[in-house]
Amino acid sequence: MRLTRYFLPVLKETPSEAQIVSHRLMLRAGMIKQASAGIYSWLPLGYKVLRRIEQIVHEEQIRAGHIPMLMPTIQSADLWRESGRYDDYGEEMLRIKDRHGRDMLFGPTNEELITDIFRGHVNSYKDLPLTLYHIQWKFRDEIRPRFGVMRGREFLMKDGYNFDLDKEAALHAYNRHLVSYLRSYERMGLQAIPMRADGGPIGGDYTHEFLVLAETGESEVFYDSEITDLKFGDRAVDYDSVPECQAVLEEFTSRYARTDETHDEAVFHEQVPEARRRTARGIEVGQIFYFGTKYSEAMGATVVGPDGQRSPVHMGSHGIGVSRLLGAIIEASHDDKGIIWPEGVTPFHCGIVNLKQGDAAADAACEGLYKALLAKGLEPLYDDRNERAGAKFATMDLIGLPWRMTVGPRGLEKGVVELTSRRTGESEELSPDAAIVRISQIYAQI
Amino acid sequence: MRLTRYFLPVLKETPSEAQIVSHRLMLRAGMIKQASAGIYSWLPLGYKVLRRIEQIVHEEQIRAGHIPMLMPTIQSADLWRESGRYDDYGEEMLRIKDRHGRDMLFGPTNEELITDIFRGHVNSYKDLPLTLYHIQWKFRDEIRPRFGVMRGREFLMKDGYNFDLDKEAALHAYNRHLVSYLRSYERMGLQAIPMRADGGPIGGDYTHEFLVLAETGESEVFYDSEITDLKFGDRAVDYDSVPECQAVLEEFTSRYARTDETHDEAVFHEQVPEARRRTARGIEVGQIFYFGTKYSEAMGATVVGPDGQRSPVHMGSHGIGVSRLLGAIIEASHDDKGIIWPEGVTPFHCGIVNLKQGDAAADAACEGLYKALLAKGLEPLYDDRNERAGAKFATMDLIGLPWRMTVGPRGLEKGVVELTSRRTGESEELSPDAAIVRISQIYAQI
Repeated sequence: MRLTRYFLPVLKETPSEAQIVSHRLMLRAGMIKQASAGIYSWLPLGYKVLRRIEQIVHEEQIRAGHIPMLMPTIQSADLWRESGRYDDYGEEMLRIKDRHGRDMLFGPTNEELITDIFRGHVNSYKDLPLTLYHIQWKFRDEIRPRFGVMRGREFLMKDGYNFDLDKEAALHAYNRHLVSYLRSYERMGLQAIPMRADGGPIGGDYTHEFLVLAETGESEVFYDSEITDLKFGDRAVDYDSVPECQAVLEEFTSRYARTDETHDEAVFHEQVPEARRRTARGIEVGQIFYFGTKYSEAMGATVVGPDGQRSPVHMGSHGIGVSRLLGAIIEASHDDKGIIWPEGVTPFHCGIVNLKQGDAAADAACEGLYKALLAKGLEPLYDDRNERAGAKFATMDLIGLPWRMTVGPRGLEKGVVELTSRRTGESEELSPDAAIVRISQIYAQI
Repeated sequence: MRLTRYFLPVLKETPSEAQIVSHRLMLRAGMIKQASAGIYSWLPLGYKVLRRIEQIVHEEQIRAGHIPMLMPTIQSADLWRESGRYDDYGEEMLRIKDRHGRDMLFGPTNEELITDIFRGHVNSYKDLPLTLYHIQWKFRDEIRPRFGVMRGREFLMKDGYNFDLDKEAALHAYNRHLVSYLRSYERMGLQAIPMRADGGPIGGDYTHEFLVLAETGESEVFYDSEITDLKFGDRAVDYDSVPECQAVLEEFTSRYARTDETHDEAVFHEQVPEARRRTARGIEVGQIFYFGTKYSEAMGATVVGPDGQRSPVHMGSHGIGVSRLLGAIIEASHDDKGIIWPEGVTPFHCGIVNLKQGDAAADAACEGLYKALLAKGLEPLYDDRNERAGAKFATMDLIGLPWRMTVGPRGLEKGVVELTSRRTGESEELSPDAAIVRISQIYAQI
């Protein structure tokens, strides 16, 4: 993309309404614009990152054998009356009457709807195991929306639902989700720690939240410092293998890690030596639940088992906060100049800064780099504006592309351009060809 | 995808509530399930087609230089009061009160919101031309939703908005949209004819609707039969070139083609020789508008021009009915056995039918074909169920994959599998390797 043909409305001033750094930077970098309280338009740059995150989530869910579909945003209240949650849910549910006066709602979650789909189509244990998921906009009418996309009212979430014959099979689905979530977050450049959590209104005894450590996190967390040394890495896990998935669960959840909701100071002291006890703040970016037959019993979602007997299926639900992740990543990865995108989610792979727009050699070199990157399947952002170098650098630093190529007449006389890492600030001089090779190699590993 | 691990709930019986063939086939093929009146869940197969159509729309909009972003579903009523449409819009607008009693609505379209974004960020003619678009769920509270996804209440639409300094530039944007729409529909295997249309509640003198001819179309259409000979093909059009885009507009819109809303019998007779006059029915799958300064004046969206004077921008809006296109494609492409997907939008590229599941040679050959197709970047659907051949064929015919490979012990003894076209029903025997090459070649041309 050439910046002169893009829509990147960066702000010079720091917006006064934004209390946390991710909200400030998303507004300043022209990623979002508030449409109304807690509801945002995703401007082109923000939308690109949202799509990258969504794509990672899709890829990892499909890898785990989970099946994508899509449920609508507007639901009938009738299903929620069946499960008993219509009255329970409180004012966070956005309730709507349609033109015929029927009670509808903007879905805050989808246990009822997916259970209705299941019971309408599945009848036998032979069709299990089954995990369906979707990535769809949800609405929760927060009384005080704040922190930008971190606690918005309209938000994008991946929610998946497993259907299994018995508890054992459902716990394997739980473990598959845990593994796929660890992989997903790492691909986004995040360390998200599974912590024992509270079931809340969805219910469930087995549940973990995934938390990203950040000073601005809304939850206080308590954990064994050994946990932060764990890496999922690029190990191959067979999602069909019960012991392999179970081993990952044990590795990542056996040490003490809890939010304030489940924290037990006595257990913490007993299990963790003092030198390894950590208290910090965390941002929740996902949660997995096993809740057994809570919805299948209430709604009659049963299957005939191998013994010919009909029984309610065992279910769980599993969510990733897709839009909230943008905020979480920025909270975890920024400096005083702006955002620092991890390579896995960056909106553009590389910036190109032309130090002297209009100079024939500089223009030609930038065009060459631009086309060479596109030919490698990478997306560059070429700052082709007639602006001072300082303004171009400031924009690139603010929007946080992990790599920048700087091209100017002086370097070109020596046959080099400058390649700079946004994270370390380190630069090196390379021939244009070598710079292209270097960038390709970096992204081939992502 | 292996069918035993997929969720494809095909129905044996024809659902009684469905009045038109696309609705019946989408229900029978397990593509959608009604969630409530006019609101559907997209089951895995339907979701895949929806995503393919969405992807074509994105690619062609980006090719035209239009910039993707995303606006939220829920909007504040305040902006609609500014434009004057809050009271005008009538009962089709889903009106909502949030917990604080503020008037909100589920967006049926986005002229107000995009104009608000524009006026908040753009100030100079130097930032023009600009076309922003998004693909987002809309809601129109139809009094009698029917025909499945063809006239649903919650529907997915691409809507794009151009901002230009003057009428001339805005009409070039109009032409760019016309070109990109012609390309998009052809890639989906559709002939969609631009017809002179009525502005309706969005307003505008320059507007064309794109109609797919089909007996079940809701509009009566009148046209010169020469129009159906026009093909966009794979010609290269420079979207920056005013004369090139204008030439396409003239080629595709100079002949008489109107819906009943704008039809003029006298003009029809005057312009079209009797032998070429056609009356038919059509399904609307898109519409483009130029409406000048209607919203920019009402909402104060102005720019400073080259002369230093401030003036309201010229705008247009341009829509493609993404979810409705599934219905339109099926109406235009089916037979009495089921759907016939055009290659450009098919949910899976090729079906694999194992005639004798459990036979070692047949199983091995199917596995080989399955992996070879995946290795070519294609998505096969392998029917690995323990079912009779007839049931497997019926499922494949119903869900409409354009190509099927049939694998059985007898063919394998001769070293062949059968490759069958869903559209023509013709089969040929090929070695497994040759079949893979043939399928790859077919899709390389799409």
